[in-house]
Amino acid sequence: MMGDQHIASAFDRDLEAIQALVMKMGGLVEEAIRTGSKSLKSRDVELAEQVRKGDRKIDELEEQINTQCATVLALRQPAARDLRTVLSVMKIAGNLERIGDYSKNIAKRTEVLVHMQPIEGTSSALKRMSREVEAMLADALDAFMRRDPVAADEIRHRDLDVDQMYNALFREFLTFMMEDPRNISACMHLHFIAKNIERMGDHVTSIADQVIYLATGEMPEDQRPKSNTEIYQIEGGDGTDEADE
Amino acid sequence: MMGDQHIASAFDRDLEAIQALVMKMGGLVEEAIRTGSKSLKSRDVELAEQVRKGDRKIDELEEQINTQCATVLALRQPAARDLRTVLSVMKIAGNLERIGDYSKNIAKRTEVLVHMQPIEGTSSALKRMSREVEAMLADALDAFMRRDPVAADEIRHRDLDVDQMYNALFREFLTFMMEDPRNISACMHLHFIAKNIERMGDHVTSIADQVIYLATGEMPEDQRPKSNTEIYQIEGGDGTDEADE
Repeated sequence: MMGDQHIASAFDRDLEAIQALVMKMGGLVEEAIRTGSKSLKSRDVELAEQVRKGDRKIDELEEQINTQCATVLALRQPAARDLRTVLSVMKIAGNLERIGDYSKNIAKRTEVLVHMQPIEGTSSALKRMSREVEAMLADALDAFMRRDPVAADEIRHRDLDVDQMYNALFREFLTFMMEDPRNISACMHLHFIAKNIERMGDHVTSIADQVIYLATGEMPEDQRPKSNTEIYQIEGGDGTDEADE
Repeated sequence: MMGDQHIASAFDRDLEAIQALVMKMGGLVEEAIRTGSKSLKSRDVELAEQVRKGDRKIDELEEQINTQCATVLALRQPAARDLRTVLSVMKIAGNLERIGDYSKNIAKRTEVLVHMQPIEGTSSALKRMSREVEAMLADALDAFMRRDPVAADEIRHRDLDVDQMYNALFREFLTFMMEDPRNISACMHLHFIAKNIERMGDHVTSIADQVIYLATGEMPEDQRPKSNTEIYQIEGGDGTDEADE
């Protein structure tokens, strides 16, 4: 019995260290979202470059987390529940890494957009959207640390608002493009930025799913609430892709 | 020694069974790419629906692979190299699942596009592009089974052609949109389809990276060859996002 206890607490210590890395990574990703959105709004190339370069640190943290998880698997050989926990943590790190990549993409497009005519009003709408995703991420990481399935479930529903913001923006971009062909190039980039933010929301939702799994042992039944099926069919609505869920 | 041998071969048997599932999954994903591209070209809603519905089977296979991998980790407690192999296989299954999702997205957009005026020539270009990605995937799975790092490295370089096809299409779409605003809506969807295919190529590249890792114990130094940095800066070129690498 003593032996068992010892093994269990060694695993717990390892897991705690890994979770600390996840939180550190999450903090950097939150900052990337915030700084990326700010650089877009203020057309600040230096800020954008900062986000682009900062992504390397995020990637490194993911690698570190994966290495430590592999070490824990090999050394502690956790069974059942503990094994699931390690695999979940790796998935969450993967989601964070991809959100970081989206921020980097937004920064790259910002660097292109500063050379084009600004499109009235759209960067404020994009900022609102990314602020919501950033808040969702902060809450998801909080729910992760507390293993709180109720908070996680709430986040999943908030993603529907993000999807709606995206759909509204998609229609707006179409209008701008039709009004004046000179807007087309900029709108294509802005549209991709909107899509990237929408996908960040999907990844935050996946993190929330993992939190529910960690807390209850089961994935949420519907995986995630969907609002997209109908919107997809409406001319002018773009719907929500699922490639990144 | 006998005991060791026994454990190793039990692991090998388990791994073989999992690899068979990966190959089955890969076959379905190849078919999804092929059928999706065909439905787009022939504006065939029934075929598109078939792709959409078929994605469920692909998702189920990924879940099955993950479950079996978790079981192997718990039961066989593989160390070092074997552990890395299991984690790599899980990553490859993840890449396949996402390629399947992109096919599903393309099918969804096809169902919207049939209600719009076709854009001359673009569906042939998209078909060429997706045929290349499909061939790359077939070769990547083959390289995976043979643990062939040379074949895998060749695939990574072919992805540059896919990126170039995407960039050419991006410019074409811009031209069509500027020529006639009535093309805008359809071009936005076609552009996303092109982007989805380009991202499929990135996932095939990730599979090739894993094959190199499995065969040599090291990830390719540059992770992947890049051609995008300059193109990104050219007005009219869209560059290559990295969110899905």
